[in-house]
Amino acid sequence: MLTAHGRVETPVFMDVGTRATVTDCTPADLASVGAQVVLGNTYHLMLRPGVDVFRQFGGIHRFMGWSGPVLTDSGGYQIFSLPNARTLTEKGARFKGYTDNQMHLLSPERAIEVQTAIGSDIMMVLDECIDSTSDEAATRAAMERTHRWALRSLAARTNPAQALFAIVQGGVIPELRKQSAGFLTQHRFDGFAIGGLAVGDTRSQREDITAFAAELLPADRPRYLMGVGTPPDLLMAMLAGVDMFDCIIPTQLAGQGTAFTSTGRVRITRLENQRADVSLDPACACTTCKTFSRAYLHHLFKAKEPLGARLLSMHNLFHYHALMADSRRAIEQGVFAAFAKERLLAIDRHEHSATPFA
Amino acid sequence: MLTAHGRVETPVFMDVGTRATVTDCTPADLASVGAQVVLGNTYHLMLRPGVDVFRQFGGIHRFMGWSGPVLTDSGGYQIFSLPNARTLTEKGARFKGYTDNQMHLLSPERAIEVQTAIGSDIMMVLDECIDSTSDEAATRAAMERTHRWALRSLAARTNPAQALFAIVQGGVIPELRKQSAGFLTQHRFDGFAIGGLAVGDTRSQREDITAFAAELLPADRPRYLMGVGTPPDLLMAMLAGVDMFDCIIPTQLAGQGTAFTSTGRVRITRLENQRADVSLDPACACTTCKTFSRAYLHHLFKAKEPLGARLLSMHNLFHYHALMADSRRAIEQGVFAAFAKERLLAIDRHEHSATPFA
Repeated sequence: MLTAHGRVETPVFMDVGTRATVTDCTPADLASVGAQVVLGNTYHLMLRPGVDVFRQFGGIHRFMGWSGPVLTDSGGYQIFSLPNARTLTEKGARFKGYTDNQMHLLSPERAIEVQTAIGSDIMMVLDECIDSTSDEAATRAAMERTHRWALRSLAARTNPAQALFAIVQGGVIPELRKQSAGFLTQHRFDGFAIGGLAVGDTRSQREDITAFAAELLPADRPRYLMGVGTPPDLLMAMLAGVDMFDCIIPTQLAGQGTAFTSTGRVRITRLENQRADVSLDPACACTTCKTFSRAYLHHLFKAKEPLGARLLSMHNLFHYHALMADSRRAIEQGVFAAFAKERLLAIDRHEHSATPFA
Repeated sequence: MLTAHGRVETPVFMDVGTRATVTDCTPADLASVGAQVVLGNTYHLMLRPGVDVFRQFGGIHRFMGWSGPVLTDSGGYQIFSLPNARTLTEKGARFKGYTDNQMHLLSPERAIEVQTAIGSDIMMVLDECIDSTSDEAATRAAMERTHRWALRSLAARTNPAQALFAIVQGGVIPELRKQSAGFLTQHRFDGFAIGGLAVGDTRSQREDITAFAAELLPADRPRYLMGVGTPPDLLMAMLAGVDMFDCIIPTQLAGQGTAFTSTGRVRITRLENQRADVSLDPACACTTCKTFSRAYLHHLFKAKEPLGARLLSMHNLFHYHALMADSRRAIEQGVFAAFAKERLLAIDRHEHSATPFA
């Protein structure tokens, strides 16, 4: 995938940098874990630092010191998550800003205007997210509004160097997903996202809908599964043809002391790690694993030292990027199905052989 | 100064790594800011991770991944600071551990035993700290106990590769400082610290006592002023002949958003930095200043992102180490008095020309 800030090898996992920073990582740290794309958030960035700052700096890349590609989510999901603090109309979402207590309007046009100022390589249309457990009428209404907003977003785009992706909605109802993909793929979007999952749906619903929706999207344009997931989720979605991912799981779990390793999840705060003179994952080539023992990481977490979460975050991101690199290699060699099956079985085996409370 | 883990260029500022980590810095980060010596704390480290872990790892260097010299403070100051939670006798300090709720004894012998397990290059004797505002009788009693404990520490040392420093006490009473230096310098300590300052004394008392005490210590062994201070404090103490320093000020102020720069202190959260497309200190060669703008650092602090404190900490430590490197060069060239005067005047000028609330 080619962007205004360079080529992206797909399938790709994108590093979540909501507020123009990936938790406690410098751009050099990001490069060292294998990051390719940073994902910012329009809703948060329009409130802070604000559009004027991005205009002054000529965009997010120079502002945050990251010269690689940036994708900006539109803020549809954040608007959806605001507790009773927004009114949603055909025009857009009106909400009170948490930084300034002022009323803001996030419309499809405004979302494009903000993303244009941010200068992201890939912009997302504003969509209407709803809970996967919503009934068919509500799911259909949100989907249809998402379609109208997608066309308004396309019309509002001013900079052709910035790609624009549409978002397929339709909850967990296959017929609606089919209508949504059918409608959106008739228009000139540069890529298509599968949105609205991981919000109330079960894992098996998510897998089914992902496979179903990915099938309906053109193979010559990137397919992006938003907000998903664990390594098995990624493998399943790649089997279904998904090219792009983002998820807070690797950094969020790192903050709680959980690491992904080649032999399953490790909870670093467990007593068994107190004196463990072994790296987090002896099979891992990341700086954390090459430099520190589990005992030291355990100590940092017990002492509530911020370096602990930082080192585990960097390891988890490296682990994700290594999974994607391995997947790309297997795809190139035409053996991805076998590769994915083997990895899925290995993960399943580790998770079920784990000691209690692991 | 030669240690078991290499040469230290003096005068030196040591990076405070109380719990075997300098706040959010990896050993590579420390090397990049110019750190030479990491300072651990016996009291904290005996509680967590505990002596057994250090014995298993063969010491703190391998445990934390730092191959340079380590100095361990004895814990005398921490014991002094415990609020009503310790009993102090001639034997030592008895206290309840905050990690295990068990009773612990920190005696001079135990402090040496723990530091031997930690494997620090420089061990400190356990001393009795008191407030500088204490009366002469109390100050004298604490000093005399510190002397007895210093001799017990010397007798308890088992590993000659680990240096042992004594601590001169005597509060802000010159006669007592004289007695303390006179007594301790008769014994075979590898260096001498000036302790008990920055605890109730005024800046001018601290400067007077430092100059007075440093004068009484042998020039052929390191003189270490504990827990001090700001850049002007360091310059004044170096003029008095002090060789070693440690202080939490650079990282503590960084955490609050204050940076030391060549043109005075910068409070990054101030509104004027919101759009400042300029580095924290254009005259500084640190990674933070070479990579990021004040506007971005301002944004990180406003968004409460941990990267902000990390980047400011690294800048402040770099600033301190650069001051020390400049001082060493001036000393080598025989122009330190003029250099220090010029720096002190510049700092004074910046602090007084600063805009209100700076």
